[in-house]
Amino acid sequence: MSDTTDLPAPSLDVEGWTCPAPLRDRPRVVMGHGGGGALSAELVQQIFAPSYGGEALSQMGDAAVLSLGGARLAFSTDSYVVRPLFFPGGSIGDLAVNGTVNDLAMSGARAAYLSCGFILEEGVELDTVTRVAEALGAAARTAGVEVATGDTKVVEAGHGDGIYLNTAGIGVVPAGVDLRPQRVVPGDVVIVSGAIGVHGVAIMSVREGLEFGVEIESDCAALGGLVEAMLAVTPDLHVLRDPTRGGLAASLNEIAAASGAGVVIRERDVPVPPAVANACAILGLDPMYIANEGKLVAFVPREHADAVLAAMRAHPLGTDAAIIGEAVDSHPGMLVARTGLGGTRVVDLPLGEQLPRIC
Amino acid sequence: MSDTTDLPAPSLDVEGWTCPAPLRDRPRVVMGHGGGGALSAELVQQIFAPSYGGEALSQMGDAAVLSLGGARLAFSTDSYVVRPLFFPGGSIGDLAVNGTVNDLAMSGARAAYLSCGFILEEGVELDTVTRVAEALGAAARTAGVEVATGDTKVVEAGHGDGIYLNTAGIGVVPAGVDLRPQRVVPGDVVIVSGAIGVHGVAIMSVREGLEFGVEIESDCAALGGLVEAMLAVTPDLHVLRDPTRGGLAASLNEIAAASGAGVVIRERDVPVPPAVANACAILGLDPMYIANEGKLVAFVPREHADAVLAAMRAHPLGTDAAIIGEAVDSHPGMLVARTGLGGTRVVDLPLGEQLPRIC
Repeated sequence: MSDTTDLPAPSLDVEGWTCPAPLRDRPRVVMGHGGGGALSAELVQQIFAPSYGGEALSQMGDAAVLSLGGARLAFSTDSYVVRPLFFPGGSIGDLAVNGTVNDLAMSGARAAYLSCGFILEEGVELDTVTRVAEALGAAARTAGVEVATGDTKVVEAGHGDGIYLNTAGIGVVPAGVDLRPQRVVPGDVVIVSGAIGVHGVAIMSVREGLEFGVEIESDCAALGGLVEAMLAVTPDLHVLRDPTRGGLAASLNEIAAASGAGVVIRERDVPVPPAVANACAILGLDPMYIANEGKLVAFVPREHADAVLAAMRAHPLGTDAAIIGEAVDSHPGMLVARTGLGGTRVVDLPLGEQLPRIC
Repeated sequence: MSDTTDLPAPSLDVEGWTCPAPLRDRPRVVMGHGGGGALSAELVQQIFAPSYGGEALSQMGDAAVLSLGGARLAFSTDSYVVRPLFFPGGSIGDLAVNGTVNDLAMSGARAAYLSCGFILEEGVELDTVTRVAEALGAAARTAGVEVATGDTKVVEAGHGDGIYLNTAGIGVVPAGVDLRPQRVVPGDVVIVSGAIGVHGVAIMSVREGLEFGVEIESDCAALGGLVEAMLAVTPDLHVLRDPTRGGLAASLNEIAAASGAGVVIRERDVPVPPAVANACAILGLDPMYIANEGKLVAFVPREHADAVLAAMRAHPLGTDAAIIGEAVDSHPGMLVARTGLGGTRVVDLPLGEQLPRIC
């Protein structure tokens, strides 16, 4: 290996995502590999799936749906490396519960049990560990999920970053519920459960010391109850996603690619709070790519859309739910936004994440 | 807080475990909190259980046994932070499969599905990630378990340590199987599946550059098949544990404490390979405290002990299985070793781990 390729590849998180480079030209891990965009997908498709992928992993949903012991279960995991550990509206403990609970909810499952693995850095204050554990416990009680099993490892000071967490979750998928992008058909209505971009901007504001006029709190929340309310209208929803890393753009691109349908959204119908819009304008970011932690996007058969929207708006976590677009039979696999001026633009899968370690 | 308490507490991993200090006198995380001994137990009992513990967590087994969707499931998790990533006889990828598969096996469950979370350090070579993923895949195929769902996060260079892994696993517990320390009664026979101390000494030899005459390979292996062979003799085994961090001493102490029975072992009957004995003699360590990754210890009703031992010896992972002691009604909750010279000694729960980051 030459001296040049021996150096770490530059991080491409902020400015690089319009210029994807194939994995083979990139000998080392860059921050964007953890961003939930094109680089993350490459890692899965080129390394993880060939090494150990089976039928379940190939579903590529937020959770795998499995048959085990006569039960139909959802199973999902996420690690959490957010920096800082505490931020307006939440902490790594809240994220570790809600992130995994939401991944299960996107398969229609109510989370029943979580595992919890702590990787602690030598020297971190036990008070900090206690605050995180208490936040995790409070979030679990709110979400109605039980932490059933755990593990703790400690790494030397200077490694780790205070606390990393991993949770995995299991829950039962109700009979008749089958949520996958492959079920999306042209004509499906796209509904988002509320304002987008809030979590990412909240993290940015504390990490970079930026002020955007008003304090923005993370939208971190558990969506199991909202999903139950939607499924009570009809079990025949087609797909749900929580647009975390990579934002709404990544989720909608993944659904378009996996379904083969095209997706059109109307920009002016996407709920973006003024504080998020201002922050994005200042920083040159697109709210479509900013992470959320308490929102979902749904593809709903047209005949059920109004009733599902009403049920969402009647739930505390869906009061600002809005229809933002639809699945179409033109431009298959692509996400297109109609701009406020009447034009259209292609919204690509991001390469990485605009701000790393947001969850 | 004074300047003195503001400093990180000293790491007590090697020499300190005979002198436990209560958690309240220790304001920060030390390496021993991840060692699987008394400090780890304090962390769980004083911070984690009060914050989020429920009925399942209070089982304190290697895996939680749960009812979900009509199925009786085992659920377990471990994070893996071993250094170096590759060692004689295995890698972090093998550990991440076998460690979690074995935790499930200790409840009698055959592992069905694993989740897998990678925390990658920016700059680690993708070739290294690929080698770990391939080792993980090979170990999963050997163990007969499917990786169903995953996640990848990336942390900045200088944080993390190349690769941390977390796996969680689920499997079905067979009907009639109820493995818990509370079922141990005086008279139960203690059987170990083979030579102890091998994994810890293998890691020590590569990390510290020590030579012990012969190369020692980790015993890292998946024990699901061995457990199935034992349960085929009788489902009425009382408890199984895989003595990883903290070694045989930690596992037997935990069983003694949770069962209320005393445990006696005969030192000369405990299989310790000469290379492990030599390494321990040189380093002043006790093989009873050294980690294993492919061994189990069983408490078996006396009437089944010979048949279970025979079944273990007929399995490739149990050829050196041996009866090493028994549960007694004297000294309840304590582990006592009869020495080769006819004396006895109390074998305490270790405070931490003699060598951190062995798994």
